[in-house]
Amino acid sequence: MSDAVMAPTVEGVAEERLARYAELALRVGCNLQPGQQLFVSASLDHAPLVRAATVAAYRLGAEYVQVLYEDEHVKRAMIADAPDEALEFSPGFAKRFIEDATAARAAFLAIRGDAEPELFDGLDGERVGRARMIEVSEITSTTVSRRLINWCVVAYPNPGWARSVFGEPDVERLWNAVAFVNRLDEDDPVAAWEAHLGRLEERREALDERRFDAIHFRGPGTDLTVGLLPGSRWLGGATITTFGVRHVPNLPTEEVFTTPDWRRADGFARATRPLSLIGSVVRDLELRFQGGRIVDVRASSGADVVRSETALDEGACSLGEVALVDESSRVGRLDVVFNELLFDENAACHLAYGSAYANAVEGAEELENDELRERGVNASSVHTDFMVGGPEVEVDGLDARGAATPLLRDNRWQL
Amino acid sequence: MSDAVMAPTVEGVAEERLARYAELALRVGCNLQPGQQLFVSASLDHAPLVRAATVAAYRLGAEYVQVLYEDEHVKRAMIADAPDEALEFSPGFAKRFIEDATAARAAFLAIRGDAEPELFDGLDGERVGRARMIEVSEITSTTVSRRLINWCVVAYPNPGWARSVFGEPDVERLWNAVAFVNRLDEDDPVAAWEAHLGRLEERREALDERRFDAIHFRGPGTDLTVGLLPGSRWLGGATITTFGVRHVPNLPTEEVFTTPDWRRADGFARATRPLSLIGSVVRDLELRFQGGRIVDVRASSGADVVRSETALDEGACSLGEVALVDESSRVGRLDVVFNELLFDENAACHLAYGSAYANAVEGAEELENDELRERGVNASSVHTDFMVGGPEVEVDGLDARGAATPLLRDNRWQL
Repeated sequence: MSDAVMAPTVEGVAEERLARYAELALRVGCNLQPGQQLFVSASLDHAPLVRAATVAAYRLGAEYVQVLYEDEHVKRAMIADAPDEALEFSPGFAKRFIEDATAARAAFLAIRGDAEPELFDGLDGERVGRARMIEVSEITSTTVSRRLINWCVVAYPNPGWARSVFGEPDVERLWNAVAFVNRLDEDDPVAAWEAHLGRLEERREALDERRFDAIHFRGPGTDLTVGLLPGSRWLGGATITTFGVRHVPNLPTEEVFTTPDWRRADGFARATRPLSLIGSVVRDLELRFQGGRIVDVRASSGADVVRSETALDEGACSLGEVALVDESSRVGRLDVVFNELLFDENAACHLAYGSAYANAVEGAEELENDELRERGVNASSVHTDFMVGGPEVEVDGLDARGAATPLLRDNRWQL
Repeated sequence: MSDAVMAPTVEGVAEERLARYAELALRVGCNLQPGQQLFVSASLDHAPLVRAATVAAYRLGAEYVQVLYEDEHVKRAMIADAPDEALEFSPGFAKRFIEDATAARAAFLAIRGDAEPELFDGLDGERVGRARMIEVSEITSTTVSRRLINWCVVAYPNPGWARSVFGEPDVERLWNAVAFVNRLDEDDPVAAWEAHLGRLEERREALDERRFDAIHFRGPGTDLTVGLLPGSRWLGGATITTFGVRHVPNLPTEEVFTTPDWRRADGFARATRPLSLIGSVVRDLELRFQGGRIVDVRASSGADVVRSETALDEGACSLGEVALVDESSRVGRLDVVFNELLFDENAACHLAYGSAYANAVEGAEELENDELRERGVNASSVHTDFMVGGPEVEVDGLDARGAATPLLRDNRWQL
């Protein structure tokens, strides 16, 4: 056989890369089991990855692959012209999709990567903000909190997303970045992920051992103490379903995180990166906290979007997550703003206002929303991450008497 | 304003054409009512028409538009590698989609137009034939038979379909053909359709008056008598839901058709056009009938697909439809083989094996499948049309004593 025949084509390389990515999503991410069903949720623009994942899934022994596609243009037409009640409506088939996944103890793969970030430009912002399938969100959030599916979220590099990152639709460059942060540049990505997950597990164990009472962030424009709950457990990297399947819910993931006591946040914080929020970019965000509530929002742009979001419901103005990331993060090392939280939240330490992860608190998984709030576990229809991290931000763990243990200095892990 | 600004762009013309087609599908086809929900079922390749229909639907006052996309590549991976039981499995969300449409008395738009007719080439023909969501088919067929939704099937011109028709992806040429057969070339397509539907109604009434006992097809390779039921009623053009919404289930449509007595078909028939069937092209199909059952299947290609399809269930090997078309048909006049039954069945007289339309038999609409079969109304998860018509095929209506009334001679309507 001649070299010419052996040499891979450009399409062949792209196809192989896609197949490797799909396999990573199923093996490391979902950890799809032989005989299990796979449910895939994606936009039309993600079809190539959906198809590669379907092929991979059946080869890994999937019993059946169900795929639910969303079309952002259909959503756009709804926001533009549908009656008001349509905005928050959850179609029965979309509910059934996640209900069936839960009932079947299935694997679940969700695909992100916004192909048309400006699609909703020019629509009524209030309607854009309200357009979400509330019942579907609630069912999904309960299923995830109760660990009833082995799930993973990945993102598919596409021209629109590449343009929003680099100013031009350079999909190759985006693929390289996505491959790097997902360790697809390694000879054996699965082994590289095993090692990485091991490091995250060590951090979680070290943090759980200390049983800190609070986390303290200190840097330019930031002096914030975030109280933890006695039952706060650190999560990150892999998690496990009630039926014993270990999986990695986000690819990439670089954080260890836990659920704070929403009633105990005091001080102020300055975001260290801009954040993309429902079609707006929020820059130079500064938040002031008092008794667990955001009492002041400032920003050089997008402050109104944060103000309206934090006013959406009772829990929206309190914290639901505290996450630690150091300089070893592949996302942070790249110095690329992905305009996609799945990636960007892994660049640096971050906080989130809105809903908390009940499974990060001992004994909270089975509680209803009002019980959660009573126990200090936040509940909300919002969950928005913002970065407070990097070389200039020092992070300490505080014990019950206020004694500090350094967690991050010069963006390096200390524990 | 200058002429240059007024002149429509090529994209503008294409967009306007798409909008007109979507509007025809909703106004003449579904007859979408203000306040009604619209359900749309389509392949990914049909997204432009889905989006145009969604925009049109909200402007016509739709309450909500639900869209369910299918991905033929996902199906291909299933046929290639899934366990055997997966082939006939109906996902819950796909059942829920049609169930909700029925419960909501919704409008339903299905979009066809195979973008990759050779996609299943090389797969096991037996598995290709078995790969269908049986429960979904059954629910859909009951809903349609009982006239519980106002529905319409249209097809979206795309490069793959154009290539299968013309040997090259000449979408413009296909659009022109599709526009012609759908009367979009008329100044007022809605009025043109009204006139055409009136002509079909006259034929139905003339046939119903005669109360024929059987229909006889005679031509090269064909000598087949198809028995009718005492309650067989001729349908075609517009139909009406139980809740009073008149609609046109197929665009285009040129046929009048009825439900035969599945137990009474004897003789042989040679298909006068090739038929596209689940990714295969069946050529020179010859079927032999005995006591209402297909007892022999021959073809120069694709015979195995027909054999496995007609073996799928008890009703699959018996007739469910007999349809009459003459030379006035716009599809027939074009002399284009569309490789799409929605169009091609309108080129000439045809028969279908598999499920019958219960609403074409007096008093049969509310019956269950086993009762239908007992009454001579076929039930099956299959419904496949094949053409037995054209200038060389003579068609007669027979009365109970066997006396013949010419229905078609030289492809001209005689009644």
